[in-house]
Amino acid sequence: MKKTFPLSKVYGLLEPGPVVLVTTAHKGRANIMTLSWLTMMEFEPPLIGMVMSDRNYSFAALKATKQCAINIPTVEMASRVVGCGNTSGRKVDKFAAFGLTPRPAKYIDAPLINECYANLECRVTDAHLANRYNFFVLEVLKAWIDPACKNPRTLHHLGKGRFMVAGRTITLPSRMK
Amino acid sequence: MKKTFPLSKVYGLLEPGPVVLVTTAHKGRANIMTLSWLTMMEFEPPLIGMVMSDRNYSFAALKATKQCAINIPTVEMASRVVGCGNTSGRKVDKFAAFGLTPRPAKYIDAPLINECYANLECRVTDAHLANRYNFFVLEVLKAWIDPACKNPRTLHHLGKGRFMVAGRTITLPSRMK
Repeated sequence: MKKTFPLSKVYGLLEPGPVVLVTTAHKGRANIMTLSWLTMMEFEPPLIGMVMSDRNYSFAALKATKQCAINIPTVEMASRVVGCGNTSGRKVDKFAAFGLTPRPAKYIDAPLINECYANLECRVTDAHLANRYNFFVLEVLKAWIDPACKNPRTLHHLGKGRFMVAGRTITLPSRMK
Repeated sequence: MKKTFPLSKVYGLLEPGPVVLVTTAHKGRANIMTLSWLTMMEFEPPLIGMVMSDRNYSFAALKATKQCAINIPTVEMASRVVGCGNTSGRKVDKFAAFGLTPRPAKYIDAPLINECYANLECRVTDAHLANRYNFFVLEVLKAWIDPACKNPRTLHHLGKGRFMVAGRTITLPSRMK
């Protein structure tokens, strides 16, 4: 079971650069896209900058509905993450094809992926750079986390199917947020 | 000694989400800033979207000179990375304070940090979102890498001085770039 996660701490989930699964829903069809091109833009409310290529089936859904969920997978899901990246929602129902469980979101129509350890419900707040750079500014409306997942082994794409898996954690005295 | 690195492969350095050290030079002063908020935006020529808070001393230099270098450190440099994040170039010469070696760049005036395993020489190509979001679009003009560093233990910020250190690498059959 997921529990609610404070919006003030969302940056700590995305700053390390994990591969994410972006879910959308449009015209009765839910879809999943594997994506690595995103960054935090503001702490609270959390803003995220995300690049989604217009070659992807999800692009039209994101632009039309102005909603998506960012779901963060761990290494146990690696083959499904790659599967979602190598297929198109034009042809494949990815939830069915990869055995992923959609869970209703609270504020958006796009489903959350239950197998991911964290889920962020987002709405597009700025699409000015969507035409030029496929760049969207998202606001996180609600965040969920699996409290049992203390040390998530996130995936970090190195290109062409190579992934770095999150390693050990170190702590240094710091005044940085 | 660094060697030149193909621009077509730069995305593989930044996609995994490492903490970076951004160098600038302005009015005769070089500076270093620790930063995690950046994303790839295009493969080639490589475009990077980067958020640099206007509270930082480096912000004015970046805006005025439209140049910076993105230097990627590894875990051996962790205390210096945090040191650069906890001090301001207004008061501290960070190269001197943290024993970092400036190396001249080829295309820009900002120095590269020799201790970092990779260095990207960048120019600002779009600052339309700088006022609203502190967001800059950078083009990588030249990339350098340490060929001896086969398995870089990059740092990935989790918040408040906690870092994930890059772990093992896995490879899955993939058609993704």
